Amino acid sequence: MERFSQSFIFTTKEVPKSAEAQSHILALRAGLLFMVSAGIYSYLPLGYKALRKVEAIIRKGMDRYGAQELFMSALQPIEMWTKTGRDKDLEEVMIRFKDRKQRQLCLGPTHEELITEIVKRYISSYKQLPLILYQIQSKFRDEPRPRYGLIRSCEFIMKDAYSFDADQEGLRQSYEKMHSAYQDIFKECGLKFIMAEADPGAMGGSLSHEFMVPARIGEDILFACPSCGKYFKKEGACPRCKKALREEKMIEVGHIFQLGTKYSIAQEAFFLNQRGKRLPFIMGCYGIGVSRVIAAIIETNCDEKGISWPKEVAPYDAILLVLEDKLTSEALSVATNLEKNQGLAILVDDRGVSAGVKFNDALLLGIPYILAMGKNYMSSKKIDVERRKTREKLTCTPQELVRFFQDEYSR
Amino acid sequence: MERFSQSFIFTTKEVPKSAEAQSHILALRAGLLFMVSAGIYSYLPLGYKALRKVEAIIRKGMDRYGAQELFMSALQPIEMWTKTGRDKDLEEVMIRFKDRKQRQLCLGPTHEELITEIVKRYISSYKQLPLILYQIQSKFRDEPRPRYGLIRSCEFIMKDAYSFDADQEGLRQSYEKMHSAYQDIFKECGLKFIMAEADPGAMGGSLSHEFMVPARIGEDILFACPSCGKYFKKEGACPRCKKALREEKMIEVGHIFQLGTKYSIAQEAFFLNQRGKRLPFIMGCYGIGVSRVIAAIIETNCDEKGISWPKEVAPYDAILLVLEDKLTSEALSVATNLEKNQGLAILVDDRGVSAGVKFNDALLLGIPYILAMGKNYMSSKKIDVERRKTREKLTCTPQELVRFFQDEYSR
Repeated sequence: MERFSQSFIFTTKEVPKSAEAQSHILALRAGLLFMVSAGIYSYLPLGYKALRKVEAIIRKGMDRYGAQELFMSALQPIEMWTKTGRDKDLEEVMIRFKDRKQRQLCLGPTHEELITEIVKRYISSYKQLPLILYQIQSKFRDEPRPRYGLIRSCEFIMKDAYSFDADQEGLRQSYEKMHSAYQDIFKECGLKFIMAEADPGAMGGSLSHEFMVPARIGEDILFACPSCGKYFKKEGACPRCKKALREEKMIEVGHIFQLGTKYSIAQEAFFLNQRGKRLPFIMGCYGIGVSRVIAAIIETNCDEKGISWPKEVAPYDAILLVLEDKLTSEALSVATNLEKNQGLAILVDDRGVSAGVKFNDALLLGIPYILAMGKNYMSSKKIDVERRKTREKLTCTPQELVRFFQDEYSR
Repeated sequence: MERFSQSFIFTTKEVPKSAEAQSHILALRAGLLFMVSAGIYSYLPLGYKALRKVEAIIRKGMDRYGAQELFMSALQPIEMWTKTGRDKDLEEVMIRFKDRKQRQLCLGPTHEELITEIVKRYISSYKQLPLILYQIQSKFRDEPRPRYGLIRSCEFIMKDAYSFDADQEGLRQSYEKMHSAYQDIFKECGLKFIMAEADPGAMGGSLSHEFMVPARIGEDILFACPSCGKYFKKEGACPRCKKALREEKMIEVGHIFQLGTKYSIAQEAFFLNQRGKRLPFIMGCYGIGVSRVIAAIIETNCDEKGISWPKEVAPYDAILLVLEDKLTSEALSVATNLEKNQGLAILVDDRGVSAGVKFNDALLLGIPYILAMGKNYMSSKKIDVERRKTREKLTCTPQELVRFFQDEYSR
C-alpha cells in the first residue's frame, strides 16, 4: 500500500510540442517518463513499475522455454565488429569512442558479436547444444530521427536472445520455441499483435518474423486483406480473396531471425559434431523492444481521459480515492487488508485535492480499478468501484470487495 | 530445478595472468564472469543469478525506508554538468562524445545532476518533502587502472540514491535512514563490514561515511586499534587506548554523503517553505557498488577450494551430485520435491563426468549445500550432505532432508 501524497507521482497537463503520439503525451502527462533531452528518457517510479512488470513477463516467458539469462557489457571493443563487417553496416547508428588508452570502443547497438565470442569460449561440442541465452539491457543508438517517445529513442531497453544449434533442424526448433515464447509474452502484456514474415535485412540469415501491434502512429506498414484478414508486406491484391489490400500502420515490438552461420563463420565459432567434424554454430536471434512494448501498450490501451493499463502490467492493481479527510485511516486499513489477503498493490489517493482532480488523475494514470470512499461510505459503508477500461460502476462493502477481486483475478 | 548438463555453467582452471585477486580468479574459474576486454566484464548466467539476489536485497532494504525506485538514462547532456562544474572535476573518467547532431553527451559516471533536474521539475513545496529516490544501473568510467575484476572496472553496476529535504534536520533523518538501510543490506549480503567517517571529496558537502569490507586486496586503507578495534582514517596511536594503530586494507562497498546545497544552488533547484520563502533543496547521496559487493562477498567467503556463497546471495541453494547414472531420475524427483515444498533452487549435476570432478566443481562453485546421491543411496537410501562453508558432513534420507532444510533456513 502506498500513499499518493508521499509518492513521486505527478500528473501534468503540459507536454512539449514535440510530443505527437498519444502514448508519448500520456506517458509524460501521467508522470511515467521524464524527458532528459530529445530521444533520451528517464523512467519515473510509476513508469518503472510498469516496465518491471513487463520485464517479469518476458523473463517468465523466456525461462519457460529453457532460455538462460545473462548480462553482457554495453561497452564492446570494435575489433569484434570488424570481424563481421558490421562496424561499417551499423556505422550510422553506432556510438563509438576511444578511451584514454586509445582503445576503440562502442556502445553495443546489439550483441550478436559479443554473444558469439562468449559461446565460442565455452562450447566446443554438439553435446552442449542446443542453447538459448538472453539478456534485458539498455541499448544505445545515435538515432537520426528520435520520435514518439519510447517508440524511437537513442537509449532504450531491449530483450535480446540468441540461440546456438548444431544443425538446421535444431535452429528450426529453437526458432519455434522463441516464436511460442513471444506469443505468450505479448499476449500476457495485453497486446493485440500480428505476426508477419519479414526481410532479415542487415541482420543476415534467411527466415525472419516480425511481431507487430497495429497503431495509428506505427512506422512499419503492412497490407491487410479486408476479407480474410491476412497480412502481407507488399501492396496489391490478396492472392486468395482477390480483394485489394489495405495499408495498415504497425509498431514493431519483436523481431526474430534465423541467422544461420553469418556470425559463427566470421568469428570462427566452431564446435565438433558427432563425427568429430568442426562446424560453425547455427544461430538465431530474437529481440523485443521492451521500452517500445510499454509505448505500444499505452498507445492501444487509452481513451480521451488517459491510459487504461491491462491488469498484468499495471503499476498498481487499484487506486483508492479518499474523498473525505476523516476516512483516511479507514481507507488505509481497507487497502492494507486487500494487500495482505489478496496480494494487491494499492495506491491510496490521500492528497488534499478535490474529488474532481482525484477522479481525473485516476483516469489519466489508468490503474485498472478505481475505488472511492466518500459519501456512500459515510452513509452506508459502500465503496464505489469503477473498472477503468469499461467505465462500468458498482458499489460494494469492504467485505464484498474481497470477493469482487477474487472473481476479477480468477478470470 | 536445473540440470547442470543443460546449463550454461562452465568451470575452468585457466585464468588470465592479469587476474591477481582471489575474487577475480574465482569468478572467472567458476564461470560467473566473462572478460570482454581489460576492465570490461559480462555476467554469465551463474554470476547474474548472484547479482540479481544482491539487487533484490538492496531493493528490499531501500524500499523498507521509503525510498522509491526509478531508472534514469545513462546518456546525459553535458550542459547539466557545466552548471555544477563537474564536467571539469570528473573530466578524467567521464566518457564524452558528440552525437550526429553535434549534441555533447556523456555516459553518466554518477547522477546527481540529472536527479536534481528531475526533482526540480516536479517538486515545488516543502509539503512534498522529504523524498528519497534510487536506481540500480550500469555506470561507465574511463578507469585509468582497471584491476581486480569487478573491484575496479570501466562498466559497473551501482545503486545510487538521492535524498531531498527542506532543512538540515530533515537531511539528518534521511541520512540516518540510509545509514540503517545500508547496515541491513550489507548484513543480509553476508558481508563483515565496518563504517568509517570519510572525506566527502569531489562530491562536496559536509558529513560522509564509508562502508568498508576488510580484505587483502582492498584499495582503501584504514588504521585499526589492536586493543579497542576502532577504525581511524589516519595513522598514529588510538586516542583512547594509546596503542599504535595497524594498517588494514579495505574494499569500499558503500558511501553515503550529506551533500547540502551544492547541486541545488548550482542548478537552481528550489522549493517554497512554510513561509513561502524560496530555498534550495538540502540533498544527500548514497551509493552502493553492486558489482563490487559481489567481488567483496567472494573475496571474503572463499577458501583454497573455491567460493563459499552466503545463503542469501548464492545462485542456487543446493547442488545435488548424481554419482551413479541410474540414480538420475530419482535425483531429479528429490530436487523437484525440495523446490516444490520448500522453494529451494537446486542445481542437479547430471553431467557424465567423474565423482571427483563433480565434488571439485561443487566446492569451486560454492553453492551452500552439496548433496550427493551415490553408493550410500544405493545401499540405504541415504543422501550425503555437506555444508560448503564448514565442510561438515552428515547423511540423511530424502524425508529427513526436508526437515534438515527447514532447520537450516529457520536459523
